[in-house]
Amino acid sequence: MAADLGPLLAPRSVAVIGAAADPTKIRGRVLAQLLKGGFAGPIFPIHPSEATIQGLPAFARIDDVPGPVDLAIVAIPAERVPDAVAACAARGVKAALVLSSGFAEEGKAALQASLREASKGLLLAGPNSVGLLSTQAGVCATFSPAIDFEALRSMRARLAQGRRAVGVVSQSGGLGFALFNRGLARGLAFSFVVTTGNEVDVDSVAAADAMLDDPATGAVLMFMEGARDGARFAALAEKALDREKPLIVAKIGRSAAAARAAVSHTASLTGADAAYDAVFRRLGVLRADDQDEMLDLALAATLAPPARGRRIGVVTISGGVGGWMADALAAEGLEVPRFSPDLEAAIRTYLPSYGAAFNPIDVTAQALENDHRLRSVAALMDSEEIDQIVVVSSLANDPRLAAERDGLAALAGRRTKPLLVYSYPLPAASAVALLAGIGIPTFTSLRGCASAARGLAAVAAARAASVRRRAALAAPMARSSAPASLPAGPTRLTEHAAAPLLASRGIAMAPHLLARDLAGAVAAAAAIGYPVALKVQSPDIPHKTEAGGVALALADAGALRAAWHAMAARIARAAPQARVDGWLVQRMAPPGIEMIVGSLRDADFGPLVAVGTGGTLVEVLRDLQVWPAPLTLEEASALIAGLRGAPLLAGVRGAPAADSDALARLVVAIGALAADLAPRVASIDLNPVIVHASGLTVVDALIETS
Amino acid sequence: MAADLGPLLAPRSVAVIGAAADPTKIRGRVLAQLLKGGFAGPIFPIHPSEATIQGLPAFARIDDVPGPVDLAIVAIPAERVPDAVAACAARGVKAALVLSSGFAEEGKAALQASLREASKGLLLAGPNSVGLLSTQAGVCATFSPAIDFEALRSMRARLAQGRRAVGVVSQSGGLGFALFNRGLARGLAFSFVVTTGNEVDVDSVAAADAMLDDPATGAVLMFMEGARDGARFAALAEKALDREKPLIVAKIGRSAAAARAAVSHTASLTGADAAYDAVFRRLGVLRADDQDEMLDLALAATLAPPARGRRIGVVTISGGVGGWMADALAAEGLEVPRFSPDLEAAIRTYLPSYGAAFNPIDVTAQALENDHRLRSVAALMDSEEIDQIVVVSSLANDPRLAAERDGLAALAGRRTKPLLVYSYPLPAASAVALLAGIGIPTFTSLRGCASAARGLAAVAAARAASVRRRAALAAPMARSSAPASLPAGPTRLTEHAAAPLLASRGIAMAPHLLARDLAGAVAAAAAIGYPVALKVQSPDIPHKTEAGGVALALADAGALRAAWHAMAARIARAAPQARVDGWLVQRMAPPGIEMIVGSLRDADFGPLVAVGTGGTLVEVLRDLQVWPAPLTLEEASALIAGLRGAPLLAGVRGAPAADSDALARLVVAIGALAADLAPRVASIDLNPVIVHASGLTVVDALIETS
Repeated sequence: MAADLGPLLAPRSVAVIGAAADPTKIRGRVLAQLLKGGFAGPIFPIHPSEATIQGLPAFARIDDVPGPVDLAIVAIPAERVPDAVAACAARGVKAALVLSSGFAEEGKAALQASLREASKGLLLAGPNSVGLLSTQAGVCATFSPAIDFEALRSMRARLAQGRRAVGVVSQSGGLGFALFNRGLARGLAFSFVVTTGNEVDVDSVAAADAMLDDPATGAVLMFMEGARDGARFAALAEKALDREKPLIVAKIGRSAAAARAAVSHTASLTGADAAYDAVFRRLGVLRADDQDEMLDLALAATLAPPARGRRIGVVTISGGVGGWMADALAAEGLEVPRFSPDLEAAIRTYLPSYGAAFNPIDVTAQALENDHRLRSVAALMDSEEIDQIVVVSSLANDPRLAAERDGLAALAGRRTKPLLVYSYPLPAASAVALLAGIGIPTFTSLRGCASAARGLAAVAAARAASVRRRAALAAPMARSSAPASLPAGPTRLTEHAAAPLLASRGIAMAPHLLARDLAGAVAAAAAIGYPVALKVQSPDIPHKTEAGGVALALADAGALRAAWHAMAARIARAAPQARVDGWLVQRMAPPGIEMIVGSLRDADFGPLVAVGTGGTLVEVLRDLQVWPAPLTLEEASALIAGLRGAPLLAGVRGAPAADSDALARLVVAIGALAADLAPRVASIDLNPVIVHASGLTVVDALIETS
Repeated sequence: MAADLGPLLAPRSVAVIGAAADPTKIRGRVLAQLLKGGFAGPIFPIHPSEATIQGLPAFARIDDVPGPVDLAIVAIPAERVPDAVAACAARGVKAALVLSSGFAEEGKAALQASLREASKGLLLAGPNSVGLLSTQAGVCATFSPAIDFEALRSMRARLAQGRRAVGVVSQSGGLGFALFNRGLARGLAFSFVVTTGNEVDVDSVAAADAMLDDPATGAVLMFMEGARDGARFAALAEKALDREKPLIVAKIGRSAAAARAAVSHTASLTGADAAYDAVFRRLGVLRADDQDEMLDLALAATLAPPARGRRIGVVTISGGVGGWMADALAAEGLEVPRFSPDLEAAIRTYLPSYGAAFNPIDVTAQALENDHRLRSVAALMDSEEIDQIVVVSSLANDPRLAAERDGLAALAGRRTKPLLVYSYPLPAASAVALLAGIGIPTFTSLRGCASAARGLAAVAAARAASVRRRAALAAPMARSSAPASLPAGPTRLTEHAAAPLLASRGIAMAPHLLARDLAGAVAAAAAIGYPVALKVQSPDIPHKTEAGGVALALADAGALRAAWHAMAARIARAAPQARVDGWLVQRMAPPGIEMIVGSLRDADFGPLVAVGTGGTLVEVLRDLQVWPAPLTLEEASALIAGLRGAPLLAGVRGAPAADSDALARLVVAIGALAADLAPRVASIDLNPVIVHASGLTVVDALIETS
């Protein structure tokens, strides 16, 4: 899928167009940092007049360079960049990294278009990139002042020894190198930092994809404002999940999502951001809300083994801080379960009476003088009751750490479950390094540690669900042999028109007949049986209730006649231009729980299915869950269970439970329909769906096509 | 209220009982750190045999010390502590700080009791304290290795120049000094760190209270597991609010709150933690979820002026990071409003076309070479549209900061609104110090910066509300001249018995009569008028609906008879032992929105009032807001507006709006009743209350007394 980014990320030779002698100036710094980074291949400074620059022979033009050039770094005034890149392409240079700014980001779209044209035939990164760093290749192609070369060398050595590292992709160069700079301070190892700038050619998805192919990269940090191509992003995320390399994403726009001017209930209840959240959750993409959280997640993902679940065991030297950690873990949706009596008894054998053997295990401050901390970690490592272990301790000045190193290394070395350490005072750098060296990440933030555990659990859940999902979706699904035909052009199918399409997928609406006039309605009601509902059918009146176009529980012909006259008058007054297809007479559904089921089409990610608490509550509570379509029965059931209104289905105050399984099957069927007809169906609304103790009734439907 | 803690926090002379020569050992370190801390008064080492210790003349017993002793620091084996403290008390020593551990925290309750007895006559801090730090007095009375003496000296000098500092109170010594240690790294100044240990005498509230009296202390950080005396804590918080010195509290127990075995709906729906949240919100106490958040809040509270509101203007050099900040601010419940056309036009005059003049203002990376950042800050400082300013920038290597220092100092020096800076790369220490010196806090975390702005806004809102609240509660409130009498002992008042008490407060229930038997019920219904409801009245059946003890909408005597027979049979079967007071016949209420109103008594904070979405939803959604009683109409209205179900009251799908004002008045009346009868009334449940377009009907009531 991804183009080979080798010439960009692991070039064998590099030219610097715009090389300068003074390493204190930005342009001089690019060459100076390339030299300091330890790049082993030839470096060719390009300069119109100088013979040597920073001790290297310089060339006047790219054509003068004697050997092959994999990568040209371009740092010259913007207006000269297109010609220089064209010359590179002509010369057979494989990739260009344009650091120059002054293109679209300053409103110069035409100049950017000519650069795009000039770049045909080579890989182009940038323009307006702050550059890139490729640790293993020793390529430090950036003017960022954030590079610590000492740290870079030691990191390269650690990567060579098998330490897993994180790759960073960011359009914003400042942010990309800020992550690098902050991560170094946290003891994180980096395999790549790529700042993609204006993304004329190589974009964030392509860069991240290449990083996933690198064996040393164990996780990718990505900063995105939006996916320009949702399908490519989704494919990237699936690849990351398959390889157990978490994709950790900062996605801005939670608050900025402009309200859509959609007529659909479903669509107006979800922002575009909800689509990202749904896609992220399904694919195990970890969304982070600030840089610290990104780094905490990356630290856990690159040092700790994958988790199997979300049951956390806590071992603490301070009861108070241990309780605080339990709160933080619970706030992240994790469990801190009480241990079984057997496990608790086993722990009780060595703890003093004033320690706590339940979860959290309070080994007390005495554990700074005995082996209770290590024994407790061992007990949890051996237990099937716990998926991850969090140790709360003080690493400012830990007198036991050296003595426990080998024991901890043996436990962590099994790589059966993550072991995370939180230090409530700022930890000594030596303690952090000692633990990192044996595969144990240290956190300085309570929330950060809890968030990392949540991330590991989320990836585990997404991986397990993905396997089941593929198996489920591979099975043949119940569907009509021929998809029902849709009328041409954008239109609105009200319930009588939507019913045949739904029926083709096995979704039956409540018994109904379409009447042209009052006499027809009375005849229809007689055929269906009272009590009935009467509803106007018009593509111009999508919200019938608000327009006075719905009358319920009409007990006899008299009531039906009165309702019809009143309704016809209201409609004629309120919507005189509306094209009325007729009057739907529908059998009243038995009582049940009102829900809403539907689909909408996201601009980035395509069809999403939605399920929510229905009736008047849907607008009040906005209790709606969305998920990419198609989806499995398991996914549909999980969506329903995730609703705030889910207890209504289970039965409250002695009410019988409603048929959640039937609802889940309906959600699956709507998901399949939305996915199959995605190019045409913009949204489906079944509102309400009345879920009975056994089965359900679809009472209303609206389908929008495009 | 608080005892004078002067001898503890600002002693004029100090004795060290258990002083030792070797400063590398814990006991020796106490004296060594006291000496290094720069304490100006006399220090008396107490040692059974040595003549001098660490260069000071030593004394065998406290009685041998020549002059008066304000504070004795005690660091000897636990079993000898009570005698030593008794000797201090006899000698006239004013305060003792016991660092020794081995008391209640190790299960030795009897030893702690004898210490308590021995301490009569002096202030006792500890035992099991890690000690205390009092910057201005130069008292460093701790064995914590976290003290940076260089930093301490410079901090003392800054405090002398008027810099506002933060005080820290923590039972846990490790956590208290961890906050100190982390805060130093953030450039925070500390006036005190007091670790209270087992709190035999001086507790966290007393220590915090004394800190609020200190002019240099601008905020107090407190770590608490629970308030042992809610009223004292509330008084402390009110004092903090009055003095504009934010109280920043970490309170554990969000997740651990054991479900109460309460029969009341209201009580079972709120954990004890909800009481803390309500009290905290009312008093402007800032609750923090981890140490970093505590420090971020403290930094803003001690450096920035108070805020007036929650409208934030953002100035950013990076559009992407600015958007991310807007998301973070929105996540904290703050507003990032679009500017007025005038303000936008004024900003547009100097920005390049590719910058953004709305909010956030994107001054672009070009602002590192011009004055657009400073001009934008000035524009927002002058504007009435914005309450706080957040600048997003890179302080790793800011070429403009020195040039803008004076301009920023002049703007920040007005102290009209907070100016907060977030640096997305790790900032240079010199930049942080420069900004701190002119009253501008720097944040390294996006969420931390947003959280600090939220904290400032919350304090502003709480202060304003507090002023209005006092005025409102000072006004005479409508109440019965004589409080209604309650039956003695713990009991349950069902609706017929609760009605007179409610009526005495002007709360009328739906018209009803209590019948002893079927004939009485039929007569009552005839008097009231059909349709009616029939409900069993028994203190043993608090949940009538679940027990089958409620029949609604009985249209005539036949229906009433049938319902009575069926109900009597059900009750006889389901609750044969129940004492049945009679059968309530009640007029059916007109339709409306079902709500729940009630009160419960919190073990720590006394009576709380609650309002929530009613009917079956109350258990499903747990959509309940609580607030300390009594409360004002404004507070009641805010509680109602804060419900997720609030839109139901405003009217959905064309339904008329319900009378929210009547509901708010009912909430105020229940609050007053709960407060006035607090020693006796454990809980009140009005469930449901049906709110009509005009007025409301209280349909059911249950009062539990104790």
